[in-house]
Amino acid sequence: MSKQASTTSTHEVSTGALPASRRIYTSPELGANLRVPHREITLHETAKEPPVRVYDPSGPYTDPEANIDVQAGLPRNRLDWLKDRDVERYIGRAVRLEDNGGATGKYLAEAFPVQHTPYRKAGNQPLTQLEYARAGIITEEMRYVAERENLGRRQAVEGAADKVADGESFGVQIPTHITPEFVRDEIACGRAIIPANINHAELEPMIIGRNFLVKINANIGNSALGSSVEEEVEKMVWAIRWGGDTVMDLSTGRNIHNTREWILRNSPVPIGTVPIYQALEKVGGVAEDLTWEVFRDTLIEQAEQGVDYFTIHAGVRLSYIHLTAERVTGIVSRGGSIMAKWCLHHHRESFLYEHFVDICEIMRKYDVSFSLGDGLRPGSIADANDRAQFAELETLGELCDVAWQHGCQVMIEGPGHVPMHKIRENMTKQLEVCGEAPFYTLGPLTTDIAPGYDHITSAIGAAQIGWYGTAMLCYVTPKEHLGLPDRDDVKVGVVTYKLAAHAADLAKGHPAAQIRDDAVSRARFEFRWEDQFNLSLDPETARQYHDQTLPKEAHKTSHFCSMCGPKFCSMKITQDVRDYADAMTDNEKADIERGMEEMKYKFREKGGEIYLEAGE
Amino acid sequence: MSKQASTTSTHEVSTGALPASRRIYTSPELGANLRVPHREITLHETAKEPPVRVYDPSGPYTDPEANIDVQAGLPRNRLDWLKDRDVERYIGRAVRLEDNGGATGKYLAEAFPVQHTPYRKAGNQPLTQLEYARAGIITEEMRYVAERENLGRRQAVEGAADKVADGESFGVQIPTHITPEFVRDEIACGRAIIPANINHAELEPMIIGRNFLVKINANIGNSALGSSVEEEVEKMVWAIRWGGDTVMDLSTGRNIHNTREWILRNSPVPIGTVPIYQALEKVGGVAEDLTWEVFRDTLIEQAEQGVDYFTIHAGVRLSYIHLTAERVTGIVSRGGSIMAKWCLHHHRESFLYEHFVDICEIMRKYDVSFSLGDGLRPGSIADANDRAQFAELETLGELCDVAWQHGCQVMIEGPGHVPMHKIRENMTKQLEVCGEAPFYTLGPLTTDIAPGYDHITSAIGAAQIGWYGTAMLCYVTPKEHLGLPDRDDVKVGVVTYKLAAHAADLAKGHPAAQIRDDAVSRARFEFRWEDQFNLSLDPETARQYHDQTLPKEAHKTSHFCSMCGPKFCSMKITQDVRDYADAMTDNEKADIERGMEEMKYKFREKGGEIYLEAGE
Repeated sequence: MSKQASTTSTHEVSTGALPASRRIYTSPELGANLRVPHREITLHETAKEPPVRVYDPSGPYTDPEANIDVQAGLPRNRLDWLKDRDVERYIGRAVRLEDNGGATGKYLAEAFPVQHTPYRKAGNQPLTQLEYARAGIITEEMRYVAERENLGRRQAVEGAADKVADGESFGVQIPTHITPEFVRDEIACGRAIIPANINHAELEPMIIGRNFLVKINANIGNSALGSSVEEEVEKMVWAIRWGGDTVMDLSTGRNIHNTREWILRNSPVPIGTVPIYQALEKVGGVAEDLTWEVFRDTLIEQAEQGVDYFTIHAGVRLSYIHLTAERVTGIVSRGGSIMAKWCLHHHRESFLYEHFVDICEIMRKYDVSFSLGDGLRPGSIADANDRAQFAELETLGELCDVAWQHGCQVMIEGPGHVPMHKIRENMTKQLEVCGEAPFYTLGPLTTDIAPGYDHITSAIGAAQIGWYGTAMLCYVTPKEHLGLPDRDDVKVGVVTYKLAAHAADLAKGHPAAQIRDDAVSRARFEFRWEDQFNLSLDPETARQYHDQTLPKEAHKTSHFCSMCGPKFCSMKITQDVRDYADAMTDNEKADIERGMEEMKYKFREKGGEIYLEAGE
Repeated sequence: MSKQASTTSTHEVSTGALPASRRIYTSPELGANLRVPHREITLHETAKEPPVRVYDPSGPYTDPEANIDVQAGLPRNRLDWLKDRDVERYIGRAVRLEDNGGATGKYLAEAFPVQHTPYRKAGNQPLTQLEYARAGIITEEMRYVAERENLGRRQAVEGAADKVADGESFGVQIPTHITPEFVRDEIACGRAIIPANINHAELEPMIIGRNFLVKINANIGNSALGSSVEEEVEKMVWAIRWGGDTVMDLSTGRNIHNTREWILRNSPVPIGTVPIYQALEKVGGVAEDLTWEVFRDTLIEQAEQGVDYFTIHAGVRLSYIHLTAERVTGIVSRGGSIMAKWCLHHHRESFLYEHFVDICEIMRKYDVSFSLGDGLRPGSIADANDRAQFAELETLGELCDVAWQHGCQVMIEGPGHVPMHKIRENMTKQLEVCGEAPFYTLGPLTTDIAPGYDHITSAIGAAQIGWYGTAMLCYVTPKEHLGLPDRDDVKVGVVTYKLAAHAADLAKGHPAAQIRDDAVSRARFEFRWEDQFNLSLDPETARQYHDQTLPKEAHKTSHFCSMCGPKFCSMKITQDVRDYADAMTDNEKADIERGMEEMKYKFREKGGEIYLEAGE
């Protein structure tokens, strides 16, 4: 845990700025009322460089000026934006015993202390970001994310653009400067989404789409086997502290409703859920007892709370289920297997598929985005890119169309376990059959043989698929396949995925991505150790590793590092090279090159004998 | 540390088998005298599967039957193979004070207790593996590596080949069964090497080439700032225990000679060095005082000890040095910067370049392989694929030709720091200008912003470049750029690179690679927890992570895992799917598919309204 961050007790979460960092706010030209957050990392004065601004999803928790009170929740700033929108306040669904898995008395998690009355769509005006975009309207959310993606550094980016934007883009076209109009157009055509339930008033909006920075999701959630409300809120705060752009609450078991309320009221990032998990709890965990009515009730319950996106496994159709029978690992998605069990038991089509339009109508009322779930994703290298997987993907494309017709924002979930040579096909096919809706993948893991290291097996696949165009990468922690991630695992998972997403941004040619790499590299070259730590994704770990070898404070300003010692430093020697090159005239450079070319020629001619002449 | 492994004290190293594993030996058809090692992992009886055989570079240390005595060294089995070869024993160079950096008395590391008289080429017959291969001769080493690459599992591979070998190979052609003739031909054309100094008689030969399993190298070495002889031997044993295929001893400072002797006498894997490091120590650390004579003396000293490959930075030519002046991180290779400093000071061509044929003649006498060093490799994303880097690479191609002319085996070192979209160009250009000599890369790191996680930033690049054709991947530990790796760092680095190399093997379509993935996945699906741990690259970590959530022994046979709990298990549900599919007739399957197709059509037609009909 960070020295800056205070420790968790009941209702306390990690706060405080990251080292040398401060949270700053900028306002877009036509949005003086918007305070868009960034993080600014200050460099040592010897650097003679301005602070480096980086994208900051960590929320007010890293702002020492913010007054954090987990029991009150974050300020509900977005309520102001609803004023002129086509919404109504109404008496929402009352919380029922089953919403918390029947927990009572000491087993019932404390309810969130403040109750908020929900909003929903009132009339026939646009409400979802997609509807607004199609109507040509730029919302506050769009203006906000445009400012956020630019990091308010128009000048830096434009100055550097010709130098750094040299990626292989696979069709991605990221402008040097993101405008609200560009955001609107990307949303209007379905290529990007802003997951932003109108009831999640605490949200700092963000955008998911392949023409923007690659985002990452972190999963949290209690399970039948343990963990408390406080732990889950802290996990969320902890995950965004290190860079999580969205958080999925995958809770099962008891107290799902109350846990989610605490998370939402304290979350500045979009929260996603898999509603079928809670629906299953409501029917006692027996998949075949699930009904459309229970599921529908759960959607409304969660939409009223403010969940920003729902994973809906409506692509698991009865006709696809037997395609998984020969697989090495069958159906590994929880949602997918629940629906498969239901379909088989009743021997009928999935109620999610049959009621898909009903689902759209509910989600549209709150602007909950779809994350169309890949219930048949491969759970092993052997099962990658098989007929079951791609049959479902085609259905997701079909459903994406239906959701778009009903004004809903959509992203599409992807695998899973895929060897490197089969990754590209996933992206290509997804773009082809899902109308360029944002792709959101889990990894993929590129081998099955390294449990305990699956954050790495999957980061390899995630970086690649991010490069090819995937808009958001769902993290995998070291505990994947083995156990429940703890605090350290969450951090390792987030940082690993941040670096994978960043590697993808670089490879795509994001115009601003390399600014941070260059800042780190200059700091490294100039032995500004503190700057190197502070600019890194995980300053604590970088510093700690350095100090294990060279603990003294003096060494952090030393002009050598621990690998080579003081007498033997390649970076020091390089300074001599610069001095030499500075002193050379252009004629001298040309002479040398010419001379060397001639010598090389003789070397080849005589099979190397020339070295004697040159050497004597 | 493993429960099986005994702890290090003076002259003790980690020994003992890995969990459920035993070291077995097979002999090739025409090589009854050869005992080729493999590791066999036994599965639980309920698996009803034969043991899984995996490649095993760990040496006798994991064989409980082997008698390990670090002070005696490993058995010198390869001496037998020298009997009919064109070699002579001779009185080698005497150890001098400067060989150990002038260390005396208590500062001098203990000499290895046994002295061996060196061998060298005697007449004009072939001696290097390249010379033998060109003469059409199959050596013991070739026969050995052929057997080793096949893992003695001809049947398993041939049975599975049509199913699993579906990679995108980028020109790689790996036969289903590796024959000694194939090995010979790959060596003859320079596409593969067997680094095997005739004086490293303890070696278990291995092959490096893109038509074989991707290999990994682990770096060890003391430095001016610390670590002892015992630690270095244990680091080597520890690195190969987890899968290091070769080890580079990058020691600097005092006691280089004695440390290396201990390592070589106890190493079953090829040992590589960078001789310029020791040469620099001999001239008091002052680069400009280096001379060809000191360097030559160092080559002979190390060749007589049995070093299997030398990194030689002969591509850093005077004319290229100023090309690095504008770089963000200049010259980051130690060897490269030493040579750059020398060239600048004397304002003349590198003595390594000028004396390259002399170097070849020395290395040929002992069959030391070249690892042509990339002294101008990029040290940051900003410097990737620049003119300095590729100018040097072209020179390495030229030198590779010269070395081949002189009968020497060659591999080529590569970068470094390269964003994903620039990785492929490195491989393509290397193949083009270096005559398909094996490529041996450090990473590459795909971003600069994650110090502390550079094993991961680089595993992303390593997996990709391995897929494209790189034959050996030099590991990067979490301490890269920050400090000296300790025992845990070495293990994490090795396991990370093993998984990257394996991901590359899968993607290339190595005919046998997927066997292990499938075994893990079947174990996972069938809740054979112990098998899943034992089959993984790091059984200790996998087990430990599992036990943190579900510590009880009983849980290791439970048919559920910690993520979902007992009531809610996707893998359990999948069994129902299988039972269902088994019970279905083909006609039923066809009916369902037809029915669903029709419904899908109606769904599209009516914009979703059809769900009412189907749903009621």
